Amino acid sequence: MSALRAVSAPSRVAEPAEGISTEELALAARNHGLPLEALRYEVTPPGLHYVLVHYDIPTVGAGGVDDWTLTVRGRVRNPLSLDLATLRSFPAVTHRVTMECAGNGRARLTPRPVSQPWLVEAVGTADWTGVPLRTLLAEAGVERDAVEAVFTGADHGVERGVEQDYQRSLPLSDATADDPEVLVAYEMNGAPLPPQHGHPVRLVVPGWYGMAHVKWLRDIALTSTPFTGFQQAVAYRYRRSADNPDDPGEPVTRIAPRALMIPPGFPDFMSRTRVVRPGPVRLEGRAWSGHAPVTRVEVSTDDGDTWTEAALDEGLKESSWAWRSWRTTWEATPGTHVLSARATDAADHTQPLDQPWNRGGFGNNLVQRIPVICLPPGD
Amino acid sequence: MSALRAVSAPSRVAEPAEGISTEELALAARNHGLPLEALRYEVTPPGLHYVLVHYDIPTVGAGGVDDWTLTVRGRVRNPLSLDLATLRSFPAVTHRVTMECAGNGRARLTPRPVSQPWLVEAVGTADWTGVPLRTLLAEAGVERDAVEAVFTGADHGVERGVEQDYQRSLPLSDATADDPEVLVAYEMNGAPLPPQHGHPVRLVVPGWYGMAHVKWLRDIALTSTPFTGFQQAVAYRYRRSADNPDDPGEPVTRIAPRALMIPPGFPDFMSRTRVVRPGPVRLEGRAWSGHAPVTRVEVSTDDGDTWTEAALDEGLKESSWAWRSWRTTWEATPGTHVLSARATDAADHTQPLDQPWNRGGFGNNLVQRIPVICLPPGD
Repeated sequence: MSALRAVSAPSRVAEPAEGISTEELALAARNHGLPLEALRYEVTPPGLHYVLVHYDIPTVGAGGVDDWTLTVRGRVRNPLSLDLATLRSFPAVTHRVTMECAGNGRARLTPRPVSQPWLVEAVGTADWTGVPLRTLLAEAGVERDAVEAVFTGADHGVERGVEQDYQRSLPLSDATADDPEVLVAYEMNGAPLPPQHGHPVRLVVPGWYGMAHVKWLRDIALTSTPFTGFQQAVAYRYRRSADNPDDPGEPVTRIAPRALMIPPGFPDFMSRTRVVRPGPVRLEGRAWSGHAPVTRVEVSTDDGDTWTEAALDEGLKESSWAWRSWRTTWEATPGTHVLSARATDAADHTQPLDQPWNRGGFGNNLVQRIPVICLPPGD
Repeated sequence: MSALRAVSAPSRVAEPAEGISTEELALAARNHGLPLEALRYEVTPPGLHYVLVHYDIPTVGAGGVDDWTLTVRGRVRNPLSLDLATLRSFPAVTHRVTMECAGNGRARLTPRPVSQPWLVEAVGTADWTGVPLRTLLAEAGVERDAVEAVFTGADHGVERGVEQDYQRSLPLSDATADDPEVLVAYEMNGAPLPPQHGHPVRLVVPGWYGMAHVKWLRDIALTSTPFTGFQQAVAYRYRRSADNPDDPGEPVTRIAPRALMIPPGFPDFMSRTRVVRPGPVRLEGRAWSGHAPVTRVEVSTDDGDTWTEAALDEGLKESSWAWRSWRTTWEATPGTHVLSARATDAADHTQPLDQPWNRGGFGNNLVQRIPVICLPPGD
């Protein structure tokens, strides 16, 4: 496969002072984040939820969804082959879930891992409807020696020299848990999945970073040994060393806590610096964690020197895996300011004030900084 | 307004070898293009159509759409103030329209104008439903001395030092033409406009670049003198000189012809280089022009040395302002190749093989280049 290696280079970090490359820009132009003012919506409207597609959005067979089947096989007593109508005939549930890309914050790291260059916006919240994965696994009858479920999507490409269908696994205990409950989802916000979100069917793994929520899902294989495919064993690992690519690292799993603020006032087109006028300014946003419910959001209006606690909504009774809204008021005075918010969850994870660097650029939940200028009175 | 100038710099071009800046990346992460495989859809599904938002997506009054009114005023005999129900009571029409950002291709220019860094993907096609603008203007009774209609959106920001609501104008002859027919649109693909596409109401000006299709439309003012606002007289001008910022330039208006190809085979994640296997490969895509219907698409598989004509669909009878699909077959042989497509319209405009540079980076319809590697047999 040396021909593939010629077009599919190993991962790397950018040189000091190396600007964003055309390759990174091509990814940024295809994929997109949540415009931060869209944090105003409890449920993200279609087209504003972040999207990351590793390869191409696949077509679903020549006959469209009529050609689509989901197979459940491997270490099961009764292999399944389900068309969409059959999948829809199982009892359905809906979960409101905040999803975030594991690479969110990557482009803010120094040195910068060269990949999809998210700044802070790779997030969204949707109502996902589908069949609990454990329902399907019970129907298939999982063998006693099964340890993982391996999920295969219909998207095909090459990555770091390896040709592959996108594949990820979950330990059986996570795949069959009752909270978070993993879904085989076919609706987003009450409508069929859009193409870019996995039409016709995707996995939803509440609390986990996006790489686990396999889109265009076509196969679930129960295995008696842990999965060692590219997206599990090579990509999506925390490797703290910049110069030891052989470090196996730790797996990327659940979402680290983060608070984001709706940028107040109005923006400058190019710098995105915010402009406000003197007086009380409502500061609000949302906060989430994949480890435990968010229990505290603190806000700083002096670039992190001092912090005050914001008011938090009570959260959804029916889901711990959706963001909570928070709000406070700031008395803006003329001059320049930097606003930040910081989330802490019930498991006492909190956002760092120094960057959590790793070679793949995963899980960077460094607190957001929003530069603001408050104009002089009457200006 | 010197305080605003501190956060809102004049336009500039990048230094030689200057990578994409964090500011440009922040725009690329908010706004997004059409993933090129989505050229497969005649009508672009929601969330895949390109989006450019200058400032923030605005909220529509405290009461939502119930608070929204569109005013028609200025040089008219009967000023109008229309709520959404009243707007919907006028006879509606639907037009299929291909829309493209005037800045598409900007990031491929040398030197690179620093702004929203599109490569080639800022396009999409939708079915827009609404009331013909000329219907509303007839209802308002345009005075004889009116020369332009000025459109104001609800989005507010600062740009190159100028605080503004987004505003653009059209000459009265374009505003009242029967083809292309300008729409005051409230549906996209049969559903209410998404927030990022102008909810609840936007202008649609078939054949024109996106800057004319004012989103979040709240006011139409008929004027007896030409509009000289920022987006008309300062931005969106073709200025050929790199070093004379006082050049008034020529206005950006209609869409220059362009053909895009669905990248064949499958991609490398990072480089987006395409991988195919030897044998016949279907090459297809879409082509459009805002001047006249596309009449010819040529394809090159040798980086522009030779061109052959592709088959074109017959186009829509009811609209000249939507893209046409084209296709041909390529016999792929092992090695590296560069694929391109080039559109020509009935007004004999064709795509250039050298970049059409201008200081704002507008209308760069240089032919697309798709690097492809064809693997050896059996690989």
